[in-house]
Amino acid sequence: MKYRDLLVAEITPEMEGRRVRVAGWVHAVRSIGKLAFLILRDFSGTIQVTFRVPKDVSEEEKKRYKELIKKVSKIPPESVVMVVGVVRRDPRAPRGVELSGEEIEVLNEAKSPLPLDVSGKVDAHIDTRLANRPIDLRRPESQAVLRLVSLSAKAIREYLYSLNFVEVFTPKIIASGTEGGAQLVPVFYFGKTAYLAQSPQLYKELLTSSLEYVFEIAPAWRHEESDTPYHLAEFISVDVEMAFADYNDVMKVLENVVKRVIDSVKNEGRKWLEVLGHEPPEVNLPIPRITYKEAWEILKAEGVEVEPGEDFGTPELRKLSEALEREGKTSGGFYFITDWPADVRPFYTKRGGKEVIGGKEVDLSESFDLNWRHLEISSGSTRIHRRNELEEELKKRGLNPANFEWYLKWYDYGMPPHAGWGMGLQRLMVPVAGIPNVRLASTFPRDMKRLVP
Amino acid sequence: MKYRDLLVAEITPEMEGRRVRVAGWVHAVRSIGKLAFLILRDFSGTIQVTFRVPKDVSEEEKKRYKELIKKVSKIPPESVVMVVGVVRRDPRAPRGVELSGEEIEVLNEAKSPLPLDVSGKVDAHIDTRLANRPIDLRRPESQAVLRLVSLSAKAIREYLYSLNFVEVFTPKIIASGTEGGAQLVPVFYFGKTAYLAQSPQLYKELLTSSLEYVFEIAPAWRHEESDTPYHLAEFISVDVEMAFADYNDVMKVLENVVKRVIDSVKNEGRKWLEVLGHEPPEVNLPIPRITYKEAWEILKAEGVEVEPGEDFGTPELRKLSEALEREGKTSGGFYFITDWPADVRPFYTKRGGKEVIGGKEVDLSESFDLNWRHLEISSGSTRIHRRNELEEELKKRGLNPANFEWYLKWYDYGMPPHAGWGMGLQRLMVPVAGIPNVRLASTFPRDMKRLVP
Repeated sequence: MKYRDLLVAEITPEMEGRRVRVAGWVHAVRSIGKLAFLILRDFSGTIQVTFRVPKDVSEEEKKRYKELIKKVSKIPPESVVMVVGVVRRDPRAPRGVELSGEEIEVLNEAKSPLPLDVSGKVDAHIDTRLANRPIDLRRPESQAVLRLVSLSAKAIREYLYSLNFVEVFTPKIIASGTEGGAQLVPVFYFGKTAYLAQSPQLYKELLTSSLEYVFEIAPAWRHEESDTPYHLAEFISVDVEMAFADYNDVMKVLENVVKRVIDSVKNEGRKWLEVLGHEPPEVNLPIPRITYKEAWEILKAEGVEVEPGEDFGTPELRKLSEALEREGKTSGGFYFITDWPADVRPFYTKRGGKEVIGGKEVDLSESFDLNWRHLEISSGSTRIHRRNELEEELKKRGLNPANFEWYLKWYDYGMPPHAGWGMGLQRLMVPVAGIPNVRLASTFPRDMKRLVP
Repeated sequence: MKYRDLLVAEITPEMEGRRVRVAGWVHAVRSIGKLAFLILRDFSGTIQVTFRVPKDVSEEEKKRYKELIKKVSKIPPESVVMVVGVVRRDPRAPRGVELSGEEIEVLNEAKSPLPLDVSGKVDAHIDTRLANRPIDLRRPESQAVLRLVSLSAKAIREYLYSLNFVEVFTPKIIASGTEGGAQLVPVFYFGKTAYLAQSPQLYKELLTSSLEYVFEIAPAWRHEESDTPYHLAEFISVDVEMAFADYNDVMKVLENVVKRVIDSVKNEGRKWLEVLGHEPPEVNLPIPRITYKEAWEILKAEGVEVEPGEDFGTPELRKLSEALEREGKTSGGFYFITDWPADVRPFYTKRGGKEVIGGKEVDLSESFDLNWRHLEISSGSTRIHRRNELEEELKKRGLNPANFEWYLKWYDYGMPPHAGWGMGLQRLMVPVAGIPNVRLASTFPRDMKRLVP
């Protein structure tokens, strides 16, 4: 069954007189006397189909058209229809063209009223939108965000392929958590308890000892108990891991990834940005780097006291990023914080150097976060590649090396020095697509409150 | 820290005299008198590094070299090293070039003996290989398969982008199973029982009502109790779903996907095919289609009786594909079986036509399987797009429509006609990479017996 000859956006004034078949949704219908106007929508755009009674036809044909107009004017919005019509130039129409309707078939009639307005005139609350996501995604802005997600994933892969990276698919059902037990999602696996991967961390590290340069774009899970605009229980993690590299090398890869995504969205995604009325930040490389110590001192100068060696929370990052933006020390809002205190980083992070911060000596690490304003977009480090050091770090964090033996034992057989990072794809869309909530970059977000749709 | 100037495969005879730094694994070491030969391996290939005592240097330097040679000859295989050497033409060397070693640093010494031979001389059992997968993946053949997986995913995406498809990431934690309760993997989700997605089926269908042409390459899970070379508990599913399309349309997309993968592997993946000593089948389009009825009759002629309307098992598919290959009715071993009995297909499959098969009237459906020899690679159909038909089909299968209400209700609001398919990426690698077991196309396979590594 052929439902359509072409997409509505492919209809041009030059096709005048051609009879075409199109299919899509009834975006709106309006009838005035003997005329019925139907706005037909498919994913490419909309076109007006005008149904009128032709003058130079038999009475029988006239009757058929009158019934057609009556039928059209009663089709509920969002019904799925197939239309046959003749292309007509119309200077008043948005694209200079409309269809003169000859036939219509209702493929699936929609119930009225709809649980959510699709025309985008009514601005619904995010909870209503997500509860009605299959319909919400028909709104041009909702669709634009997901198309930018797809475009971003494409840009990331293309850049990484060009650097000799190989895409991998690591297991998502795992025997033990990466960062300890918190936030783990348990799975019943052939009668045993296992967990969903919080990240491909340990597996991507192991793969550096063979494939060397690996990346993955795949789901990851955290039982996030906090209901914020930036946390999902299931998110898409972009992961990169590189043999014979340190944190400086992978920061370069990361900033280039961010730049490629933004360039690609500005070029190939122009149409969707216009729908969203959003312009992503201009990113120039290198993205500025400040150390944890420098960040700590800026915060102190701003009157914010952080215990030396402690992590920064969102309030601190807001304050810090404001100060950096004021001084022009970000690139479009992006900046790296490097050389974090070792004790607040995961066990596989390589230590490096000491600094006196706020009068206290702090052990540092070869690590970084990439932030956009107050939001952490990515986190990475040089990793430890020696078994004894890994065991020490596990113990320091109250973790039992025996539980990680399945992983540790491979460090006996030639693990290379390596480094990498993980990035939340939905978080990257906050600056890229201009969304206020990461849920809008998910098809069907999963969080504390949402398991359906 | 800079570990290397270039990859070993990038060293050419034209670089003679240049001092370079390389890093990788000690593939083999051998010492003869005053010489030590080290084969250094990185992911690009191998190079011989020869350590010899230079003639025209001081006694002190000579002593340093003698100690260096002693040190090199004792480095255990698979240790990670960094080497500085001078490029020397050597017509006897495999690539016409070797390094004259000047310095070596052991970055991570490997324990001996290794749990698995990496040089590939000893052919280990698949269970041993998978138990030692981080090391097994250093074997060129193991790595070649995973690189072909990456290349195949790339070829699939590029083709689908060219057809206006958008990549989506659907939720993997779901409230109810697609095909009923069997094989579902339960998850504890914020105190509730949920399941891991067996496929993105219902979500990709819902997305056709907005994004229209969607695809996904992502993990999917089935509690497979059967231990065969073709089943995984976690596999990579390639999923395509298209609005305003029927099963014939999506079969065309599918056969083109298969052809693009094979073309891409034959071009860009030549190097890996040579490592594997495998040539993928030549695929010419269209891939032959036979109906279930025709297949049933061929089987009957071959002396294999199947109850009319019943599914075919592996023994039947072996017999059938042998008959088809004998008559030249496959394309490189690939063939479609179409128009399956409706009752053996999932509830969302659109019915279509009736046929008398073996004297029995059988209700058919707009469905297909793509097989390669006896192996099912992909399965697809036109889907039902009307709510009442879906409800009937659920009831016929003993499923309760109320459990699917979260999904069914969207069919009230303008679901378009649509069609699609799902394909097991690891299964496709059986013909593409010539592997005897789908586990070899996984980084770290998950099955009844395997949760680690």
